[in-house]
Amino acid sequence: MSSSVSASAGTKVLARVRLATVSDIPQIYRMIHQMAEFERLTDHFSATESLLSSTLFPTAPNHSPPPFYSFTVFIVDLNRNLVRDVSDDTNLNPHFTPMLREVDLVEGEGSVEGERLFFEKEKNGWEVAGFVLFFPNYSTFLSKPGFYVEDLFVRKEFRRQGLGTMLLSTVAKKATEMGMGRVEWCVIDWNVNAIDFYQEKMGAKVLPEWKICRLTDDALQAYAHKED
Amino acid sequence: MSSSVSASAGTKVLARVRLATVSDIPQIYRMIHQMAEFERLTDHFSATESLLSSTLFPTAPNHSPPPFYSFTVFIVDLNRNLVRDVSDDTNLNPHFTPMLREVDLVEGEGSVEGERLFFEKEKNGWEVAGFVLFFPNYSTFLSKPGFYVEDLFVRKEFRRQGLGTMLLSTVAKKATEMGMGRVEWCVIDWNVNAIDFYQEKMGAKVLPEWKICRLTDDALQAYAHKED
Repeated sequence: MSSSVSASAGTKVLARVRLATVSDIPQIYRMIHQMAEFERLTDHFSATESLLSSTLFPTAPNHSPPPFYSFTVFIVDLNRNLVRDVSDDTNLNPHFTPMLREVDLVEGEGSVEGERLFFEKEKNGWEVAGFVLFFPNYSTFLSKPGFYVEDLFVRKEFRRQGLGTMLLSTVAKKATEMGMGRVEWCVIDWNVNAIDFYQEKMGAKVLPEWKICRLTDDALQAYAHKED
Repeated sequence: MSSSVSASAGTKVLARVRLATVSDIPQIYRMIHQMAEFERLTDHFSATESLLSSTLFPTAPNHSPPPFYSFTVFIVDLNRNLVRDVSDDTNLNPHFTPMLREVDLVEGEGSVEGERLFFEKEKNGWEVAGFVLFFPNYSTFLSKPGFYVEDLFVRKEFRRQGLGTMLLSTVAKKATEMGMGRVEWCVIDWNVNAIDFYQEKMGAKVLPEWKICRLTDDALQAYAHKED
């Protein structure tokens, strides 16, 4: 068990972190569904492409603050052509210059041809490998905004290659550039690999004393009309 | 121990939930400090009035989405004059019509004259009694926004009169009006009175399996520059 994965001969590919656009919705939807399966939460799953599109990329001007001031998605995608100056639309977003890095890709299990075609469909050779969805939160005690990371996902065959770190550290970098005080997220308690990684590799604190409370469905409706 | 507080003769006052304005900053600051004392978290407290003002009421147009699309504060205040048509600025906010309700106020312990003057300073007879700070969050599984309640606070002498419920149910009402799927918040695990209230009186679910992770200070800086 002393062999090192990083010593294996991999394929050099270009990894890119960029802002998602509305044309990424089918890939984002597919990844969210895969994530729900992994987290054993498919019974709570009611996402649709149309809802994702209207809530993440609203068209009413009032409802669409610039990226980083509301719900924001970074995509990490891979290109086997190692072409750094691909001038597709995603590189032209005025709010964020894509971050590029060469990685030595050692593909894991589960790489399926149909899946790969789906994830690189009409993307100039870029194959979507993962995403992170985050948005501003606020700490009154710091009187500062932070970022809350709602979801971080890397497709199964691309895990353990540093792509999750590339996504999360880009969020952290943006947070520090914006003068924010924190980056926060939640982890489900049985995912001990993730918890170890966050604490030992990232230096994050896990706060065991706080519990999430959620008001939803009928209870939300009833409470909303309590004062009527 | 069988006497009922609600049977005591109280004073009829008018309670109002309204959007906060920048002129509420001194009162909001004072309440946040009182909250930090109650939660035994004053060592994490680094709020200032100036930071609160610039982050909750930013002046750059790009950075100030309308209320409910970013950090939003509702104030609950009380008026002993029972005048419903007070035409102060706070009633003229185009984004939210204040909610008014008569309450039978039975003041608790801790009412101090100096405090009261501070909390009603220059507010046409309205005395600030509490606040709630909330902002949109997002559930990918629902593909819908919700509200996350960062802080809910009612001044000690005004507790157990329904003012916290008035604040939270106004947030819930706004969430349902905006087609949101959830209202969420966190509770510290030793605050069993609060947990009982949320579960039994509100019908909220407490999710014991999720833990909050936080990256802050030096660890945030280090991680932000990991890919440099």
